[in-house]
Amino acid sequence: MHAPRDVRVEEREAPRIIEPTDAIIRVSAACVCGSDLWPYRGVEELRWPAPMGHEYAGIVEEVGDDVRTIKPGEFVVGSFWASDNTCAICRAGYQSGCVARVPMGALGAQAELLRVPLADGTLVATPEMPSDDLIPSLLSASDVLGTGWFGAVAAEAGPGKTVAVVGDGAVGLLAVLAAKQLGAERIIAMSRHESRRRLAREFGATDLVEARGDEGVAAIKELTNGLGAHSVVEAVGTQESMNQALHAARPGGHVGFVGVAHGVSLDGMDLFWSLAHVHGGPAPVRRFLPELIDLVWTRQIDPGKVFDLELPLDQAADAYRAMDQREAIKVLLRP
Amino acid sequence: MHAPRDVRVEEREAPRIIEPTDAIIRVSAACVCGSDLWPYRGVEELRWPAPMGHEYAGIVEEVGDDVRTIKPGEFVVGSFWASDNTCAICRAGYQSGCVARVPMGALGAQAELLRVPLADGTLVATPEMPSDDLIPSLLSASDVLGTGWFGAVAAEAGPGKTVAVVGDGAVGLLAVLAAKQLGAERIIAMSRHESRRRLAREFGATDLVEARGDEGVAAIKELTNGLGAHSVVEAVGTQESMNQALHAARPGGHVGFVGVAHGVSLDGMDLFWSLAHVHGGPAPVRRFLPELIDLVWTRQIDPGKVFDLELPLDQAADAYRAMDQREAIKVLLRP
Repeated sequence: MHAPRDVRVEEREAPRIIEPTDAIIRVSAACVCGSDLWPYRGVEELRWPAPMGHEYAGIVEEVGDDVRTIKPGEFVVGSFWASDNTCAICRAGYQSGCVARVPMGALGAQAELLRVPLADGTLVATPEMPSDDLIPSLLSASDVLGTGWFGAVAAEAGPGKTVAVVGDGAVGLLAVLAAKQLGAERIIAMSRHESRRRLAREFGATDLVEARGDEGVAAIKELTNGLGAHSVVEAVGTQESMNQALHAARPGGHVGFVGVAHGVSLDGMDLFWSLAHVHGGPAPVRRFLPELIDLVWTRQIDPGKVFDLELPLDQAADAYRAMDQREAIKVLLRP
Repeated sequence: MHAPRDVRVEEREAPRIIEPTDAIIRVSAACVCGSDLWPYRGVEELRWPAPMGHEYAGIVEEVGDDVRTIKPGEFVVGSFWASDNTCAICRAGYQSGCVARVPMGALGAQAELLRVPLADGTLVATPEMPSDDLIPSLLSASDVLGTGWFGAVAAEAGPGKTVAVVGDGAVGLLAVLAAKQLGAERIIAMSRHESRRRLAREFGATDLVEARGDEGVAAIKELTNGLGAHSVVEAVGTQESMNQALHAARPGGHVGFVGVAHGVSLDGMDLFWSLAHVHGGPAPVRRFLPELIDLVWTRQIDPGKVFDLELPLDQAADAYRAMDQREAIKVLLRP
């Protein structure tokens, strides 16, 4: 990305092993993230030109001397944060807060080749080479599924719970899928777009709410005997969506927020009187990767359905445009 | 309270049973809460003149026809929120968010007689009539201990955890006691006042930090290998203390906040990148009352030590003044 709305596909020098813990992978599939739209729309400044992309799955080409668990020729999925997976923070399940973490976006996964730092702590290999139809779902585990999953876990979705999901982007839709997998009794998806509503239903939504803001909150209260939802996933990252999520939770309920909170603030009194639990941030995808890969591999879930447009990497600029215009939920890029 | 800094002790009409779920108690002890200082200092508007006080312990004089578990003659401690203790929110342990809740402050516990709504759901009786020396500790369970306890529970203090407590008021000091009871490995109290530091030590603090703000955060990081505390209790309610608490928690850690958050806001990005859990609000004291009364009754804890001044109810104005000037940590009032 050279500037907001200026995406170009260019030849760059091939990445090489720098640290002995690095791996180089040949990217089978990458994609455009909702968070890539922040700089695209000029809301976030990058150091231009910036390599883009932090979601990836592919085949290991080469590993550094200290890499032990990942081998050349393996098909791997990695988190959008590289992590050592050994520090106290990683061991507690917060690999996105690893003391040695590296943001994969800075390395640029929307590419043919990608250097992955801390390969042992970041990548997870599939049991065998996947068939082509599994690749979108495997790719999704790298961020969008992992993030929706974290949102649902942070919101403590589970048996007996009513879960509301604010946001009908790919992350929100996959939070619906996650809530379903986690055993939620009732799942309320908030969306007014027909194709997204359909996918939400398919992923397990039991109720759909079109209203937003205070009206959306009132609709959720009405569906929950006036109490609010046990669990609310916030998957947008705006002030309106955050308020909506907080107000839709019952006292003692849980808000899991995974939208990148640009310009958002939480009013202390509001938070105080809500009596809600609030937890979120960059998803520790590595915590969930083994389980998510297994669910995809055994075809128990099909999160790859969020990719409703697939383009060759050459047409990355079109991919950004389609997502910016909400013509596509999420675009997969094939190098 | 007739206006900020204008506290008077006056004859009022004796409270009577209004609802069949009410009880009337003769107050053995009441006290002044840190939150009573907000209107006293003019930060919070009340409908003047306002009856004051929401912490109480005493002897039941009379109960309404529908009261089943509480009997005249019993010594009882009650929560600062009246609650039915039967609704879904109460059953989940959030009695301070009860669908039928009544704030006891509106009824005025700094008095000789007090009407307690929803008596069965609000009051807990002691096994027998307590000896006089137990009364301060029993009274503390009504709010200040219950609130400190909730802060520690919300921060998930427990075995193996390092717990930092921001705030050396009575609530903060009792959060130290709670963290100790909950099995925390290391308890860092933040205080620069000698008498409060001594009490913090007595209640179980293993480390004391004098620094505040960013320096206080740095001090906690230094004590925790640069990672931050597992659990942080915020027991002040200012912007500085909330930021300090959030920044002192490690990724994946828990912030329990019980300071009433006047004029506080949480920056969304700050919260996002902290990866902390945040939970707090008005403490659901009723959840903890049976356990807290038992711990006091069996003399396993002595939270009454936070009362470093005892005055007859007549001198309530002096009690407010002493707490406002930080001459006393907490003042007990005997009607």
